[in-house]
Amino acid sequence: MQSWQHEEGTVAAEPRPLVVLGATGTVGELTLDVAQRFPADLRVVALCAHRNHKRLAQLAERFAPAAVALADPEAAARFRPTGWSGECLAGPEGVRRLAAWPRPATVINAIVGAAGLEPSLAALRAGHRLGLANKESLVLGGGLLRAAAAKHGGLILPIDSEHSAIQQCLRGHASHEAQRVILTASGGPLRQVPEEELAAVTPEFALQHPTWRMGARITIDSATLFNKGLELIEAHWLFDLPFDRLGVWVHPESIVHGLVEWCDGSLLAQLSVPDMRLPIQLALSLPARWPGAVARCDLPRIGSLTFEEPDTERFPCFHLARGAGEAGGTMPAVANAADEVLVAAFLRRRIALPDIARGLEQVLAEHTSRPDPALDDILTADRWGRQRAEAFCHERDAHGASR
Amino acid sequence: MQSWQHEEGTVAAEPRPLVVLGATGTVGELTLDVAQRFPADLRVVALCAHRNHKRLAQLAERFAPAAVALADPEAAARFRPTGWSGECLAGPEGVRRLAAWPRPATVINAIVGAAGLEPSLAALRAGHRLGLANKESLVLGGGLLRAAAAKHGGLILPIDSEHSAIQQCLRGHASHEAQRVILTASGGPLRQVPEEELAAVTPEFALQHPTWRMGARITIDSATLFNKGLELIEAHWLFDLPFDRLGVWVHPESIVHGLVEWCDGSLLAQLSVPDMRLPIQLALSLPARWPGAVARCDLPRIGSLTFEEPDTERFPCFHLARGAGEAGGTMPAVANAADEVLVAAFLRRRIALPDIARGLEQVLAEHTSRPDPALDDILTADRWGRQRAEAFCHERDAHGASR
Repeated sequence: MQSWQHEEGTVAAEPRPLVVLGATGTVGELTLDVAQRFPADLRVVALCAHRNHKRLAQLAERFAPAAVALADPEAAARFRPTGWSGECLAGPEGVRRLAAWPRPATVINAIVGAAGLEPSLAALRAGHRLGLANKESLVLGGGLLRAAAAKHGGLILPIDSEHSAIQQCLRGHASHEAQRVILTASGGPLRQVPEEELAAVTPEFALQHPTWRMGARITIDSATLFNKGLELIEAHWLFDLPFDRLGVWVHPESIVHGLVEWCDGSLLAQLSVPDMRLPIQLALSLPARWPGAVARCDLPRIGSLTFEEPDTERFPCFHLARGAGEAGGTMPAVANAADEVLVAAFLRRRIALPDIARGLEQVLAEHTSRPDPALDDILTADRWGRQRAEAFCHERDAHGASR
Repeated sequence: MQSWQHEEGTVAAEPRPLVVLGATGTVGELTLDVAQRFPADLRVVALCAHRNHKRLAQLAERFAPAAVALADPEAAARFRPTGWSGECLAGPEGVRRLAAWPRPATVINAIVGAAGLEPSLAALRAGHRLGLANKESLVLGGGLLRAAAAKHGGLILPIDSEHSAIQQCLRGHASHEAQRVILTASGGPLRQVPEEELAAVTPEFALQHPTWRMGARITIDSATLFNKGLELIEAHWLFDLPFDRLGVWVHPESIVHGLVEWCDGSLLAQLSVPDMRLPIQLALSLPARWPGAVARCDLPRIGSLTFEEPDTERFPCFHLARGAGEAGGTMPAVANAADEVLVAAFLRRRIALPDIARGLEQVLAEHTSRPDPALDDILTADRWGRQRAEAFCHERDAHGASR
């Protein structure tokens, strides 16, 4: 268990340097909104983006960071801010350099995909506080991240509602007293679709998430419960708990985001209206809380909160992701990579929804996991998983064409 | 805000001395059950009872305390344990002496009524950890208790579900970050009785509490919401918050016991099956948690948690109790004393249910509160409130007889 609660009571004498990776995405922009509201606490020192050089130029002009980076060298060459003259780095190496900012800093990693892993490691190796919205960092490299944080004094604050909720509930407690940690799941748009109708579900239908507005892949992953399986892997690394002490409850209202069940039989739960601004602000403010992240959560007006066990038989992707986490090594990297390809194929109507689980099962069965993988092993497994999933889709294409 | 969380990480080298006041009542017996389950952590050194000398003799034989006390001197004279030969004190002075146990101790105060106030003060002045099931201590003497705890390093751990829940939620946080503290109320058996039918409610009907088994007075006080008003007074003193930052939500399932609303808009909540063994065990175990206080809280099996605003117009006792708390001084002592007499009169069918609020309103209107009262002022106000409420009932008797 991490010990960020021991920072209690320290007061920042000057604004804390803030590095935002993925600054032009949704989480990046929301992070900068918070920074703008709390200028006495945060000073934006570096901003990174993938290739949206126009937006990055606007942000550089507004926040006056000392440096920026664009992961795409071509975009970096076209970067033309007016009225800002800091340093502009290019390529993944530039992003990693800014993640390893030379003074104690908070680094928000809102990069999408496996490209987020190396900057996370760079931030932790520099001993920074890492606000982690990049899911792949922990799913692919949880062991590496935890080792880096332990060795260099870095700290991971999860930027998603479930893990942020659990971190709040665990505050001030010893981890061995947590009998079980429970993540909630809205259940998604397919919660009440009978199993025999899942094959006919269209991308448009599956993309209608009941409570959260998110990107296409994570919305489909929520519908198949694959995302919840990945979140168990993240929780495993974040809270240092075995998988048999991690649970999931379906909670369609998305008000309770996470719970901790204590050895004495009681529960602590964190609740809020579903809004990413809360975990973002907490990653910046903790151990303090700053005002006004989200609207108040008026339970009498909401009226009722419901809970049910997840129907994981109908959604085999959940067990496939969880099983990959339990297998460990390079298996989660393969599961994540294969799922990304399979979801993209479903969205392009190349495969049906149940094919995501079929493809995933086939690719995972073919993989021999490498324990305690180094970064290169993980990136190799990631590429291998994509290739195998692509081959599965290709077979389906041929099969579909022959029908 | 008290700082019990700073004890974190200390490990008791030997069992902590435990003094149980009100040992032969429900909370006292449950406390001793916990002590028996954790002999490495707790050693019973003293037991007190009002007058049940037979049961106290059995407990003395089983737990071998160094001393016992009976508040009733006649009962003390009849106290005849076999196989136990410690010291037996008599009278309220004996109870106070054991509450001020000469070595650092945990004192559980499960005395019923205003007689609990002085032993609470004695325990805090001795610098003890005070597990407080005696409601009157804080309602009547909250200012005295808080001053004593601050001066002598004593600590108050509330033994009731709502305040224990809130103390758990506040753990590790700064009190100024708590925007609002919310206690839940089951709503009681009268929650759905229309206002015009309240005058016809019988004691038998009002005594059917939906989720908690408790004594007669507190069950009626729950039905009228007077008890929830008293709990706001307790919360005011325990958490050092003004009344406008204390709220009540009706929650008929009694699973969520208390919530803290933070300045950032999020909530932390404590949940458990309704069972007094949890707050009792926590008062003994904190900052640690010990296993198995209550059955696990399986939300998917419970299915649904509902919340509504309390209908305080229909239950004027709530505002009368809360208003007495806001007035402060000796007003809460008068409110509590008058209510006790009025509820007893209702249970004996001398007055109707709505007369409890009428009597309370009349007695409170007659009282001139004394600010920052000393112990004597409080005890005088307590007697005065009883007399005035008795006079109100007497008038009603005469009125009823003349009808």
